[in-house]
Amino acid sequence: MGKVYLVGAGPGAADLLTLRAARLLERADIVFHDALVQPDTLALAKAARFVDVGKRYGKVSPEQRFINRALVEAARAHEVVVRLKGGDPMMFGRAQEEIDALAEAGIECEVVPGVTAALAAAATLRVSLTKRGVSRNVAFVTARRAPGQPENVWLDAASSADTVALYMAGWQSAEIAAALIGAGRPATTPAVLVESASLPGERRVKTTLGGLLRGQPLRGQDQRPELDFKGPVLLAIGEVFARANAQDLRFEEPARATG
Amino acid sequence: MGKVYLVGAGPGAADLLTLRAARLLERADIVFHDALVQPDTLALAKAARFVDVGKRYGKVSPEQRFINRALVEAARAHEVVVRLKGGDPMMFGRAQEEIDALAEAGIECEVVPGVTAALAAAATLRVSLTKRGVSRNVAFVTARRAPGQPENVWLDAASSADTVALYMAGWQSAEIAAALIGAGRPATTPAVLVESASLPGERRVKTTLGGLLRGQPLRGQDQRPELDFKGPVLLAIGEVFARANAQDLRFEEPARATG
Repeated sequence: MGKVYLVGAGPGAADLLTLRAARLLERADIVFHDALVQPDTLALAKAARFVDVGKRYGKVSPEQRFINRALVEAARAHEVVVRLKGGDPMMFGRAQEEIDALAEAGIECEVVPGVTAALAAAATLRVSLTKRGVSRNVAFVTARRAPGQPENVWLDAASSADTVALYMAGWQSAEIAAALIGAGRPATTPAVLVESASLPGERRVKTTLGGLLRGQPLRGQDQRPELDFKGPVLLAIGEVFARANAQDLRFEEPARATG
Repeated sequence: MGKVYLVGAGPGAADLLTLRAARLLERADIVFHDALVQPDTLALAKAARFVDVGKRYGKVSPEQRFINRALVEAARAHEVVVRLKGGDPMMFGRAQEEIDALAEAGIECEVVPGVTAALAAAATLRVSLTKRGVSRNVAFVTARRAPGQPENVWLDAASSADTVALYMAGWQSAEIAAALIGAGRPATTPAVLVESASLPGERRVKTTLGGLLRGQPLRGQDQRPELDFKGPVLLAIGEVFARANAQDLRFEEPARATG
């Protein structure tokens, strides 16, 4: 009986993998990975079989139950099974379903933490998420909803923290800004969008909550080309970002009608 | 003129360093490090001079201004200056002061993110900080106060998030529990304390907010030996920890008088 390692692949760049993750990849018999895990990272696992269990490019995503079952079967056939998840496995990674399924099947499991996207974004923006006198805490939030979940379950956490990192926020930045302004956050609050943090295609743009509203109309159509993202986007909000190392976007004109 | 790298040393175990951090350490001419950075990690930098700028064991901590100045001077004398910070530099690491001082002196600076303590704790507890239907967000908080700061500035963020990770919380767990219960969080909410996550001396104990109150009287004296910590402690709170991989502590008797 083998062992399954749930391993954080970091934000993208292969050199932001941990030493432990790199060694496990070298030893892996089989690697299950998300779509966001980069080819350079997978190249560290020369001997292994690879199974892509992520969704992207319009392909249908395997159901979580299928992934759970595949991990259990792999552990019965192989010694070292690596399940690579973008960023850190325990942050927006649906790791608990896999951990629980492995425990139920009596299969040993170990989690190897990784660098989460918000910290890679902070590094490239050269902005500390906490700063004496400005920010004493950070909320890590997603505005994505599971089916049947009420709207804005994220808003309480996001409006109560000094600094907010919103994961998977590229197509929702105007909605998010509108909700935060509605909850009392000033429209002048700095907001930065970081696309593909740590990767060659990285982009960093800085605006304000009000700017997000003007730049990306609420229906998600006709957004400014500067806000047309291809890679994963982290949206970071808070006073600490006033001097972020990012392209300054000003959307000064009034909001356009969205039809 | 050299360059300064602000590098996350991860939670402690040397193999949770990133590949990039390990390569920079190998190339470093001089390494400035916090007290929490472990000898195994420093051993990766064989050729370098080491400067301990952390406080511990009763020694007086160098002032931040002294560290800023020392980094600027080191960059004028050396090519590769590494500033190693426990965990991730941008989370409770006072990195902004150093980044700003280097920018002001015209010295190039790069930040290399690391694995932050809360994610190492989640890994060893085998609990995902987010979980569908239970937790959609996480707050990273410290209850430590800067001089002159009002009490409980952390409470808003901590009481609004589904899951809370409190850094540097070992000696304040009863105060924290009292404040959260006062803010409406049930006394039955699971709470886990992780000491020295990822290191050989790691300890993980699980209780509830009510248990923290009973186990560690408010004056900080006469705490239960199970709550007498030597290493850095992360306190994690939330329903997701109901089944954490940790020693189960039950403090059922009523609170003792603390004199």
